[in-house]
Amino acid sequence: MSDYPGRIRIKEEGPREGFQYEKAPIATHHKVELINALSRVGVTAMQIVSFVNPKAVPGMADAEEVVRLIDVNPDVSYRALWFNEKGLRRAMATQRLDIKGSLALSASDRFLKANLNRTAPEQHAVLRGMIANYKSMGIVLDRGTIMASFGCNYEGDVAPGRVAAEVRTMLALAAEQDVRLESISLADTMGWATPRSIKRVIDAVRSVAPDAQLELHLHDTRGMAIANAAAGLELGIDRFDASVGGMGGCPFAANDGAAGNICTEDLVFLCDELGIETGIDVEALIECARLAERIIGHALPGSVKTGGTLRRLRAAVAQASTA
Amino acid sequence: MSDYPGRIRIKEEGPREGFQYEKAPIATHHKVELINALSRVGVTAMQIVSFVNPKAVPGMADAEEVVRLIDVNPDVSYRALWFNEKGLRRAMATQRLDIKGSLALSASDRFLKANLNRTAPEQHAVLRGMIANYKSMGIVLDRGTIMASFGCNYEGDVAPGRVAAEVRTMLALAAEQDVRLESISLADTMGWATPRSIKRVIDAVRSVAPDAQLELHLHDTRGMAIANAAAGLELGIDRFDASVGGMGGCPFAANDGAAGNICTEDLVFLCDELGIETGIDVEALIECARLAERIIGHALPGSVKTGGTLRRLRAAVAQASTA
Repeated sequence: MSDYPGRIRIKEEGPREGFQYEKAPIATHHKVELINALSRVGVTAMQIVSFVNPKAVPGMADAEEVVRLIDVNPDVSYRALWFNEKGLRRAMATQRLDIKGSLALSASDRFLKANLNRTAPEQHAVLRGMIANYKSMGIVLDRGTIMASFGCNYEGDVAPGRVAAEVRTMLALAAEQDVRLESISLADTMGWATPRSIKRVIDAVRSVAPDAQLELHLHDTRGMAIANAAAGLELGIDRFDASVGGMGGCPFAANDGAAGNICTEDLVFLCDELGIETGIDVEALIECARLAERIIGHALPGSVKTGGTLRRLRAAVAQASTA
Repeated sequence: MSDYPGRIRIKEEGPREGFQYEKAPIATHHKVELINALSRVGVTAMQIVSFVNPKAVPGMADAEEVVRLIDVNPDVSYRALWFNEKGLRRAMATQRLDIKGSLALSASDRFLKANLNRTAPEQHAVLRGMIANYKSMGIVLDRGTIMASFGCNYEGDVAPGRVAAEVRTMLALAAEQDVRLESISLADTMGWATPRSIKRVIDAVRSVAPDAQLELHLHDTRGMAIANAAAGLELGIDRFDASVGGMGGCPFAANDGAAGNICTEDLVFLCDELGIETGIDVEALIECARLAERIIGHALPGSVKTGGTLRRLRAAVAQASTA
């Protein structure tokens, strides 16, 4: 019936993606408060800040300060985002982050143009330079992302074979310089995926790269993220990005309604119910989602924080039965 | 990979369930406006009012007036809810409704007690009387519902075999009086289902009642409804209840966070993307969801009305390609 993994690894993206997306400024101490709270619930990897041009993204101007002020939990891999060597140098200078490089290709040429203003050959050249740079700096390359793996607002439907070809290109670009990427992330950047396209794309990618460790990065723009994650879990996918409360969005996706990543606590709830370990305490994570709502001053889309978990209800039933 | 149906039938429950759930009174003409709007988008079956005690449910005191004022579309089956013969007589007196009876059992004895204050044998006796009554009145019995088919806030997890046993009991009670129920609805009354329990329960029910036409009634309390619907579609389930915008909730479910039925337009969107016909125009339905939001004065949880459909994006891409 399904090939559920025994355990999945979730990378929490709420603090970076969520706070970056908010229009109102978020106080540094509030960012730190949420990151610290998330560090205590079983999250093992978390993207916490972007090192980007503070003029372009003023909300991330305090990135160094945030990193300096967090209480580092040695069991958590604190990650950051950067787009150039200047950003990377800033991240390294903090000496508190887990510095790993990542690469990105797009299954849509038009999205690549709109998002990074490059053609595919130009992007390949950029990646070759990045790989060489990372290698020369002794930095591990962690993952390759295939953006727009399930469809594109600029290009429409994306053929699974195209995604598989991008994965091959990604692996080949890395192999040229004797680099083996730890994982390949299939990103539903603009929320086009359905359970069917999840299966078709994963099948196509596995047919050309059977040994690649795959991840899913699922935006919930059309409410399909949890169904798409369930489809991925059934295929044994065991790595997901997620965002506490469903914080965030993609400002580049040419769509005002673009939603954030799949809600972390809803994904953890699903896994709990399917007997899949996440290492995360869902009740404590729900408290983090509520904290995030208080900090940003508006409701977040996640469901389990409102509906409640079943663990609590089962405990109440058990107590009533013995009373 | 899956056994998607070619076409599904959705019964819209927003006007009844949604308006009944709202705390503030809804003007009769607003109810009529939404029902009329839904009648024009391809919805073929819709539960529009309850005939219940107006002292207990003041928001449904105008049920007759609502039914009298709607513009009847002959392609739509307008349905109502009632709990006793008095309610049924009121529904019949309107002469504008599609009068069909339904029966309910519960896969949780404690929910039956909490919801209807009856034991299972008492409920069986009540159903025997109801069947006899419907038969004597010449009213077709339409469906049997198994409440709490996927779990219960009062009783905890529900074994799939228990649901299958209730289905057998339901069919046997009908057969005693030579009645054949058109369908059996498996209701996730309190939002406990996951894609795995959907599969387990459907498999168990099909093993004892392979010929029964199954329906799913899915509450979205924990954000799993769309994943559960996707799991049902993969098993060939072709009848669903749904609620425009995700209106509604279950006030009897001992949980403040109880959410409404699966959002109709999100389900239609999923079906559109999977190539499953619903007969419903999703763009027009989204306008109905927005109308519902204006009427009730607050946002509804559906996602596609915010994220937008892909049909529009595909059309824009096609236009840009030819320009």
